[in-house]
Amino acid sequence: MALQPKYLTGDSAAINEFFDQFDVFLFDCDGVLWSGDHLFEGTVETLELLRARGKRVVFVTNNSTKSRQDYQKKLTAMGIPSRVDEIFASAYSSAVYIARILKLPAPRNKVFVVGESGIETELRAEGVPFLGGTDPALRRDITPEDFAGLADGSLLDPDVGVVLAGLDFHINYLKLSMGYQYLRRGAKFLATNLDSTLPMSHTFFPGAGSISVPLVNMTGEAPIALGKPSQAMMDAIEGKFQLDRARTCMVGDRLDTDIKFGIQGKLGGTLAVLTGVSTKEHWEKEGAEVVPAYYVDKLSDLRAAEES
Amino acid sequence: MALQPKYLTGDSAAINEFFDQFDVFLFDCDGVLWSGDHLFEGTVETLELLRARGKRVVFVTNNSTKSRQDYQKKLTAMGIPSRVDEIFASAYSSAVYIARILKLPAPRNKVFVVGESGIETELRAEGVPFLGGTDPALRRDITPEDFAGLADGSLLDPDVGVVLAGLDFHINYLKLSMGYQYLRRGAKFLATNLDSTLPMSHTFFPGAGSISVPLVNMTGEAPIALGKPSQAMMDAIEGKFQLDRARTCMVGDRLDTDIKFGIQGKLGGTLAVLTGVSTKEHWEKEGAEVVPAYYVDKLSDLRAAEES
Repeated sequence: MALQPKYLTGDSAAINEFFDQFDVFLFDCDGVLWSGDHLFEGTVETLELLRARGKRVVFVTNNSTKSRQDYQKKLTAMGIPSRVDEIFASAYSSAVYIARILKLPAPRNKVFVVGESGIETELRAEGVPFLGGTDPALRRDITPEDFAGLADGSLLDPDVGVVLAGLDFHINYLKLSMGYQYLRRGAKFLATNLDSTLPMSHTFFPGAGSISVPLVNMTGEAPIALGKPSQAMMDAIEGKFQLDRARTCMVGDRLDTDIKFGIQGKLGGTLAVLTGVSTKEHWEKEGAEVVPAYYVDKLSDLRAAEES
Repeated sequence: MALQPKYLTGDSAAINEFFDQFDVFLFDCDGVLWSGDHLFEGTVETLELLRARGKRVVFVTNNSTKSRQDYQKKLTAMGIPSRVDEIFASAYSSAVYIARILKLPAPRNKVFVVGESGIETELRAEGVPFLGGTDPALRRDITPEDFAGLADGSLLDPDVGVVLAGLDFHINYLKLSMGYQYLRRGAKFLATNLDSTLPMSHTFFPGAGSISVPLVNMTGEAPIALGKPSQAMMDAIEGKFQLDRARTCMVGDRLDTDIKFGIQGKLGGTLAVLTGVSTKEHWEKEGAEVVPAYYVDKLSDLRAAEES
């Protein structure tokens, strides 16, 4: 049986010991800091407490439709002070991976984007050439000319070396057909993240993973994912922040993404909060594979730390 | 090792014996009768030979965008004489399954269609109420009002009891979101067929199975498929034609759909033709699971039958 996590709620001394072990806290957002459009009480104060103790705070999100700038606006709108360089979203993660790790040689280094403007903003910031995305020329029905032009390649850019799929509210048959043709011709297959659903309005909608899955189904190939729990995202975070994994803690509400992300990334610790998807029963059950190192009922329970 | 198939090409006596064993021949079309828009030489004459010997001919296709009437027009355009009642397409198969086997009690018996007009035509012919499909009101971007209305259910018809997904050239985020919400609320999940790709213009495009796969990814549930090789289609064919399976032969070019369909359906025989996807090597290799009973190089080789 796996070790059970240490419960920190109401234990000031234990919270202090917990703080002392880490320099960096990676935060999942929805379900941890807020739920939907409801900011949890004490979120801002808890983040301030960490900053006051000299901790680095990073907001890590699989949201692929927003650039870091967009996401900072969202944090601001929620009432959470933040800086752009504290934000790590899957669109940015993807752009960093393509520009700094994949580093495809020109000219075959263009990215065909299935997704929204956040991806385009981040690719542009990293100097990565791209097409597709929000191009209005692709927001239409497929035509007989398209079928012919995709088959003979005349509608395809021979310089595309990557297909990057994220959440696309404007997904259509034409874009899926183009993405598939690029993959057939040898483009590398990346996905911002593989979340099957998007939590919204207290229910679920298709997530980024449900936009790329037709391409997976057609090619039989799984993409490299750049969101949690993929370690490609952890590598990108480590590269950017030069963090010491042993002194870093992942905070999240989902065992199968957040906590798994921290454990597989061999971080010094993981903290589960019970204000989101996963419950204690998930890790207490027989054979549970993902068990956090610590847990609290809610994030703001950390405010009970002893005065330093 | 599985029995190897009997090779009929050039063996008039064997062809005659083969004919004598069957009353009904189920034909896959593309790769057997034609390829793309090229009719194979001798196709019409071979079909005429079978009919002249009193055999029943049925055209069985996974094409879900066409009604039987539409498909007959396609056969006519290819130069193949046929009657509507000789055609069994997956849209029709789905409508028959819903109307005659599923038989949901009113009022919760409406079908939310993700697909094209062929499905609508066949549902209408079977008296099945439906929505979605080619409705122009759903061929648009999702709006904030849609997110809210799908979440609170105000945009959903409470009488939907089935989601039927086929090939949809107008797939979009709104339709996927609606289909998912109906499934969440307990609708049964059907698919006309699960072909991952659509062969067209000498390449491939997204097939019906790549339109339904986001819903599979979101729900974790596989649909009941009404196309080859699903036995739900065989049951529907048997029900309609009152055929004797032991006296029926499936003819096709693909081991994993056509021949598998015939073997799992316990038909009297299966005939592979080598003018399409599968080759001899596919069934001759070690551990091959799907082996036809007979094969010919091309369908028209059957014309070498002895004069009767």
